[in-house]
Amino acid sequence: MGEAVTVREVGPRDGLQMAATRMATADKQRWIAAIAAAGLPEIEVGSFVPPRVIPQMADTDAVLRASVGLGGPHGGPVLVALVPNLRGAQAALAAGAGKITIPVSVSEGHSRANINKTPDEQIAEVARIAEWMRGQDRPVPVEAACSTAFGCSIDGVVPLDAVLRVAEGLAAAGADTIALADTVGYANPAQIRRTVRAVRAAIGARLERLHLHDTMGLGIANALAGLDEGIRAFDSCIGGLGGCPYAPGASGNIVTEDLVFMLESMGHATGIDFDRLLEARAILHAALPDEPIHGQMPKAGLPRTFRRAA
Amino acid sequence: MGEAVTVREVGPRDGLQMAATRMATADKQRWIAAIAAAGLPEIEVGSFVPPRVIPQMADTDAVLRASVGLGGPHGGPVLVALVPNLRGAQAALAAGAGKITIPVSVSEGHSRANINKTPDEQIAEVARIAEWMRGQDRPVPVEAACSTAFGCSIDGVVPLDAVLRVAEGLAAAGADTIALADTVGYANPAQIRRTVRAVRAAIGARLERLHLHDTMGLGIANALAGLDEGIRAFDSCIGGLGGCPYAPGASGNIVTEDLVFMLESMGHATGIDFDRLLEARAILHAALPDEPIHGQMPKAGLPRTFRRAA
Repeated sequence: MGEAVTVREVGPRDGLQMAATRMATADKQRWIAAIAAAGLPEIEVGSFVPPRVIPQMADTDAVLRASVGLGGPHGGPVLVALVPNLRGAQAALAAGAGKITIPVSVSEGHSRANINKTPDEQIAEVARIAEWMRGQDRPVPVEAACSTAFGCSIDGVVPLDAVLRVAEGLAAAGADTIALADTVGYANPAQIRRTVRAVRAAIGARLERLHLHDTMGLGIANALAGLDEGIRAFDSCIGGLGGCPYAPGASGNIVTEDLVFMLESMGHATGIDFDRLLEARAILHAALPDEPIHGQMPKAGLPRTFRRAA
Repeated sequence: MGEAVTVREVGPRDGLQMAATRMATADKQRWIAAIAAAGLPEIEVGSFVPPRVIPQMADTDAVLRASVGLGGPHGGPVLVALVPNLRGAQAALAAGAGKITIPVSVSEGHSRANINKTPDEQIAEVARIAEWMRGQDRPVPVEAACSTAFGCSIDGVVPLDAVLRVAEGLAAAGADTIALADTVGYANPAQIRRTVRAVRAAIGARLERLHLHDTMGLGIANALAGLDEGIRAFDSCIGGLGGCPYAPGASGNIVTEDLVFMLESMGHATGIDFDRLLEARAILHAALPDEPIHGQMPKAGLPRTFRRAA
């Protein structure tokens, strides 16, 4: 049997920010509770960004506060909030976040479009946040996520050297963990392996997580490539919702249901219950019936031959 | 750069046999010509089975004869015909097939449902076909494909020992090459690796090909797992059509467009032209507009960062 894998459900953040319809706050709360009940160990509940920029996230403070203390089969999930800056980090901690994640684009074009800063300016912001967090009574882990690490729909090819420079900068800035994000879904498995190896050689186990999109149909294969390289934490989204408002052409995140099926089939325990995961999917679909919903496992059901990881 | 990979388009056989609508013979011919023009090195054009069993394949003889001599960027494709028995092999050779492929179920239940024989009876049929083929003036390669090698929707788990027994039996029976088929789409990447390694240890390089379905969303990841184990030949289907009439719950084949994108992105040359592949997809869609058509690469287009394999 393989090692356990931590799946973070990012639907309430990455999924909903691209949805054509806005999900009501009460529906978000019900959905997040259902995700917790399914046993997801981490849930990214929203982002502390200006409401005029991403109106779908305007209620993040209320959603996060309502989610604090949610139970679950393993003591309840870690509630993650995306924050672009120190002010956001302060708001997230005040509202009860158990972890914060800060986007840092590797490509200049995406960085400008997403947060109107250069990568270096955003690395400096991560340093400010990490320092501030260390001074808190109850600090929570600070993650930095390298967006567009595998290509950018604005700038095109993103050189591996640029990824290494940003990852090393974030490690030096004091980020507790680092994620690599295929924001636009351009990665292929060979590139995932090459990049994970190089970044791990540079910053070691601080590289923790992959965030993958299925734009080109390679999302789950890219997750496998990361798994082969020892990655044991992945972001995904129920129903494969998602994208990036500043990454033209990007499509949904990898599908939680299919990812968890692959992991469990391969002997990697996730702690996630399929029946309850499908209930959470049903809540999403009922709340946003016009939103396209993806995933093969929910359509086919579990195979007769399926056995959970131990 | 990686080694070249041979992609066999199985849409005209595996795809169409499950389609709710029957494709007209003239449309099949146009579609196959377009697939050849896209540079697919092998095309499975149909099956020589009783028309009362699979009416969609009733015109295989005519379709095959019309396809003989089709050009293509690499001298034209090898035309493959599925044959369940010696009579089918004789008809296929007479009509101009460049290769024949014989299905041999590993599981008893699927074998009974598919061809009303036991696996051992079908291995004996392969021996008869191989012996007859050796006596022909212009013999063509004989492939045997181990169906339900990764699980069966009728019998459930298919033990690796059973796969080995059938593969060894087929090698002894004189099959030139052997394929492993995940007929119902139950395989996971760890199982693919385990099985390919074991079968190769038993019969060596005679194990050539994987035939994968995307029932559970792991089809492309399973192809990656096979690629990692040295497999350099895959079946796939434009638009992800397909299934198996005798495998309840099975869904479509892996999508040719996405598979070729993965292979080329990873540096494995396929010889396939994407623009012409999308023209072949358009012909399929125009001929069967009500048939669901899958694939991410055709929706997203090639990424800005894409470079073909050398």
